[in-house]
Amino acid sequence: MDHGRRLRRLQALVAESKLDFLLVTHLPNVRYLSGFTGSAAALLMSSEGATVFTDGRYIAQARQEVQAARVVIDSKAPALAAAEWLLGQGNGGRRGSSRPSRTLGVEAEWMTVAGRDRLASVLRGKAKVRPAPGWVEQARMVKDAGEIQRIREAVRLGASLFGIAKKTIRPGVREYEVAAAMEYEARRQGAEGMSFPTILASGPRSAIVHGRASDARIPRRGFVVCDFGVILAGYCSDRTRTVHVGRPSKEGRSLYAAVLEAQECAIAAVRAGVTAGEVDEAARGVLRERKLARWFTHSTGHGLGLEIHEQPRVAAGQRQKLEPGMVVTIEPGAYVPGEWGVRIEDVVVVTASGCEVLTPTEKDLVVIEA
Amino acid sequence: MDHGRRLRRLQALVAESKLDFLLVTHLPNVRYLSGFTGSAAALLMSSEGATVFTDGRYIAQARQEVQAARVVIDSKAPALAAAEWLLGQGNGGRRGSSRPSRTLGVEAEWMTVAGRDRLASVLRGKAKVRPAPGWVEQARMVKDAGEIQRIREAVRLGASLFGIAKKTIRPGVREYEVAAAMEYEARRQGAEGMSFPTILASGPRSAIVHGRASDARIPRRGFVVCDFGVILAGYCSDRTRTVHVGRPSKEGRSLYAAVLEAQECAIAAVRAGVTAGEVDEAARGVLRERKLARWFTHSTGHGLGLEIHEQPRVAAGQRQKLEPGMVVTIEPGAYVPGEWGVRIEDVVVVTASGCEVLTPTEKDLVVIEA
Repeated sequence: MDHGRRLRRLQALVAESKLDFLLVTHLPNVRYLSGFTGSAAALLMSSEGATVFTDGRYIAQARQEVQAARVVIDSKAPALAAAEWLLGQGNGGRRGSSRPSRTLGVEAEWMTVAGRDRLASVLRGKAKVRPAPGWVEQARMVKDAGEIQRIREAVRLGASLFGIAKKTIRPGVREYEVAAAMEYEARRQGAEGMSFPTILASGPRSAIVHGRASDARIPRRGFVVCDFGVILAGYCSDRTRTVHVGRPSKEGRSLYAAVLEAQECAIAAVRAGVTAGEVDEAARGVLRERKLARWFTHSTGHGLGLEIHEQPRVAAGQRQKLEPGMVVTIEPGAYVPGEWGVRIEDVVVVTASGCEVLTPTEKDLVVIEA
Repeated sequence: MDHGRRLRRLQALVAESKLDFLLVTHLPNVRYLSGFTGSAAALLMSSEGATVFTDGRYIAQARQEVQAARVVIDSKAPALAAAEWLLGQGNGGRRGSSRPSRTLGVEAEWMTVAGRDRLASVLRGKAKVRPAPGWVEQARMVKDAGEIQRIREAVRLGASLFGIAKKTIRPGVREYEVAAAMEYEARRQGAEGMSFPTILASGPRSAIVHGRASDARIPRRGFVVCDFGVILAGYCSDRTRTVHVGRPSKEGRSLYAAVLEAQECAIAAVRAGVTAGEVDEAARGVLRERKLARWFTHSTGHGLGLEIHEQPRVAAGQRQKLEPGMVVTIEPGAYVPGEWGVRIEDVVVVTASGCEVLTPTEKDLVVIEA
């Protein structure tokens, strides 16, 4: 990853703005810009350069990971260490004037109300705190080639876990036993961990959209929603497949077919220039025709990368235009509370003329004999 | 868990305060008060009652989990749904006056600057937004009997993983293979997941305080720091043990002995009425005498419960007094960058006269034959 190039792009934005400094406190943003993966960090940049602030636990790790920015170790909270360091810089902001007021942009979507108050009290009026635009999120939305490669590898590893699920899902097995087998395989293949708590929701639990693997036993007949992802070299994968244990009813098959058609229509709608809302509508429209729209209670997808949920949101009314290099999930579903649910999800990369589906495409309904 | 009792305690605090409403947005706090475990939620309470706001993904789950509060499903962000609902309540705040200004307390340590701005714009001046005291964190600091039992069970399960580590750690094995075996066992025993990314740091990597299991191979000789925890029924465990592969040098043994003595002195210092800073000093003082204080680059411990890091912080200068029922980790360490590191950690419950160590106590240096 070329962190130097990313920092220079951001520095250019700072230089063109009314801000003298930008304080990055959201850890995935710090990582994106500097490579630092510690759990306590802030990155302060001006048009001149960037400095990562962290604490004594990370002396060795920061030296190893951060190449394109300075590193300052301080026992104070990183954002406050950055503020004190800024005060020590005299009037060296980009304007180089002797006026005492410099302007520090903060990440308003991530900095807490209390955090901003503490920052202001350290700065004692010597610098003004202002919300900065979401520059880093904007930059992160469009992945570079190295990132797409990492996501591709994460998706490939993640997708392979479905084979374990198919082998392990049997009536009477507890949901978490299936999740355990999948997660062991993920680790064995080198994943740093799962990108979110594995969802393994069987029988009536399949209607619980975020039904984490529980101690429930898989019933002799019914859907099992498997939604899972890994983190590999920092990047997330996300995949959902729904299988059926025992012979599916006609209604069950028809529910599955409707969700699959919605998912494929949404994938077909993805291309540069289309809005995220139009992709959502492609899926929602299919389910509306089938009188299933009221059971599709979430949005169609989300960006992913260093985080499992990133911009853009693929949801009703979203006007964000898709651009080549954006990576999003496409995951419509339908859920009848107390009865059943189905969701099917792939990860796609937006291209000029359409998209590339990164997830291997097996999507016919898998029936597991009881 | 008696969520009704927790809500009533908070409602009494709201009633005595200048606030008409309290908006709880930190998810572990929402869970603590209502039992709801979804990933999108806000809880709005007045002295009269409480309402949980979530979205359509969680219809079934919210009905299942929330007993002591109302549930409102809304497609908007939960905090904004709560704000709109509040406006719809007329002037029904606790003062029952016709004045249009009601006061809504928010969790300043958790609400973002942008989140507060969005909230204010929904409220259009019809309610004032003010920071609320950290009531829920204060309440959560002292665990009730049901919580201590859950933590006890999580710690017991977590501690058992060290047996897997001892069996798996061998020269040439990759760090993540050890972590994978431990995590599989955790799942197999019913854990919902790990409470943080497993730290498995061998050889010179043992000096990296937060050295997540990597693809590095365990060397023929050196320390291996294993720091790991599980989530069981929502509650976290946390344990660190450091083993040595191959015969330890005299210096290695002496480093281990010093950290162990520091850890035991800190545990001996824990009792109700003592400050968290005094416990930290008990550990730090031992390492200072051994000329190792400069290598102890973090604090001695932290509270844990629904989150892996909670109040109180057991750190230098912390004036928070320990109270019976507080649960904290005691985990001093010493790390020489590029060379080696040792950390030893237990979880303890504060009692009137001392503490109960929940973690099984085996702490002699384990030597694994190369």
